Amino acid sequence: MPSVAYVNGVFVAADADGAVVPLEDRGHLFGDGVYEVVRVYGGRPFLLAWHLERLAHSLAAIGLANPHSDAEWTSLIEQAVAQSGAAEATVYWQVTRGTAPRAHTFPDVQPAVTMVVRPWTAPPAPRAATLLCLPDERWANAWVKSINLLPNVIAKENARRAGADEALLVRSGAITEGAASNLFVVHQGVLYTHPANRYILAGITRRFVLGLAHDLGIPVREVAWPLAELAAADEVFLTGTTTEVLAVDRILAYEADLPSLHQLGEERPRGLVGRDGPLVTLWQAKGPGPVTGRLQEAFAARRTMG
Amino acid sequence: MPSVAYVNGVFVAADADGAVVPLEDRGHLFGDGVYEVVRVYGGRPFLLAWHLERLAHSLAAIGLANPHSDAEWTSLIEQAVAQSGAAEATVYWQVTRGTAPRAHTFPDVQPAVTMVVRPWTAPPAPRAATLLCLPDERWANAWVKSINLLPNVIAKENARRAGADEALLVRSGAITEGAASNLFVVHQGVLYTHPANRYILAGITRRFVLGLAHDLGIPVREVAWPLAELAAADEVFLTGTTTEVLAVDRILAYEADLPSLHQLGEERPRGLVGRDGPLVTLWQAKGPGPVTGRLQEAFAARRTMG
Repeated sequence: MPSVAYVNGVFVAADADGAVVPLEDRGHLFGDGVYEVVRVYGGRPFLLAWHLERLAHSLAAIGLANPHSDAEWTSLIEQAVAQSGAAEATVYWQVTRGTAPRAHTFPDVQPAVTMVVRPWTAPPAPRAATLLCLPDERWANAWVKSINLLPNVIAKENARRAGADEALLVRSGAITEGAASNLFVVHQGVLYTHPANRYILAGITRRFVLGLAHDLGIPVREVAWPLAELAAADEVFLTGTTTEVLAVDRILAYEADLPSLHQLGEERPRGLVGRDGPLVTLWQAKGPGPVTGRLQEAFAARRTMG
Repeated sequence: MPSVAYVNGVFVAADADGAVVPLEDRGHLFGDGVYEVVRVYGGRPFLLAWHLERLAHSLAAIGLANPHSDAEWTSLIEQAVAQSGAAEATVYWQVTRGTAPRAHTFPDVQPAVTMVVRPWTAPPAPRAATLLCLPDERWANAWVKSINLLPNVIAKENARRAGADEALLVRSGAITEGAASNLFVVHQGVLYTHPANRYILAGITRRFVLGLAHDLGIPVREVAWPLAELAAADEVFLTGTTTEVLAVDRILAYEADLPSLHQLGEERPRGLVGRDGPLVTLWQAKGPGPVTGRLQEAFAARRTMG
């Protein structure tokens, strides 16, 4: 099943010579763009309307005109999926501010659209994830789904090097979210997750799961869970477009990171990549989480309904 | 005088078909890379050794192996300048983590090097600059010269829309720096500038000007100047690779931004782009600044010495 790329109106193989962008595309120079990823189940993009709504929101945030109507986007994405021939796939697409000689201020050029469709093979994912806590050092507008993702890249790599599956970002003692997922805590039957304010990227799967919780009669509170209260959590899980609903069974942190998890204030940061020293376990699951399980079942039942 | 691009070993015209990078270059997908800009005076790159030292520092920070020795970089940059034939030019170059199917963790691929040399024509720059104060919403590692520049792009565009030449970023009441320059305040004969900690990008021209100040016997204090003390400033100026030493004659702010300049805490940010409402003047120069003038003269005398 081939991977398909789309560059400003033309479909090519993802590894073809034509799958290129100008060196001075502002995505390449400044990370000046926004993106979306949608999961395709049985040939159908899941929750596409919500992704398009968020894309419009991100574009408006960075002052970029939406190059397509929702109908045009839908058609484009369906064409791309059809070209790939994959029933299970991810569609990644981004809009950048276009190409111009490098200067920070906005140039008067057309935005650039690129897209990649890849057949989706579930990775040998753990049935439950281990997380590594790291200080949330991102900018103050994490609600914009921009391609300025270096902090997320570094967090995810540090997690991998610590043997964890995902990073858990903590801003001044409050758990915000994962590097590429949202986090939920279950405590005494109530579901907690960070409010969708400027400090998190409000996930589409987060939104969908909040709806499932409502349907299942699980009470929800959108408040940040304090790191200091982690031990009291009954269950922890992640949500994300490809992550779906994933149980967490262990949360780690580097001992040396503990102060900066509670208050970001050091003048010199610890090494950004390749943090080291002893790891401590901050939380461990007591067993399979019943609330997580109910939401996973509900998610699996609904995702194929499109 | 042509502009010249360099892509992984090959020189081409900057507007040629070959001046492209793969769509899945991690610069384009994640802003996963670092960069430098050097000014060429009379055919010679100025302070190149310091730029290469900082590049090495940025690469190490993001866990990327330096693809070249300093001697190789110097030769490459000299070749690029020679290809352009320009005596007055800028050389921009970036190193990204290379090309791989999109996944946050580091792939096992070679980094990618791209470069653009452009003849330098001094813009119709003001002899003195107007600045617009904006909340510094960047990530906590502004000391890394990464291509995650969306916050800088947005700040610079907002400055332009307010009729200003540059943004002045303010983090919890402390002036950090411009969107693409460092800031100095003169107060009672003493030069103040933000310390080179995690919250600013330690400019090469900043470093050079600190050396000039030392040579001229001007006392220096590397401490952040509080926004609340702006009225007490006798002189204000900017430094930067293409900015050189530029006097500031006026500092503005949107009235509506004043609270977030003193404390970043709103859950929802103001519109990122196209902020509006009344502007207030926070500072105005009383006339040409004598300390700024001495440093400008010293800079002009030294830059041609290479």
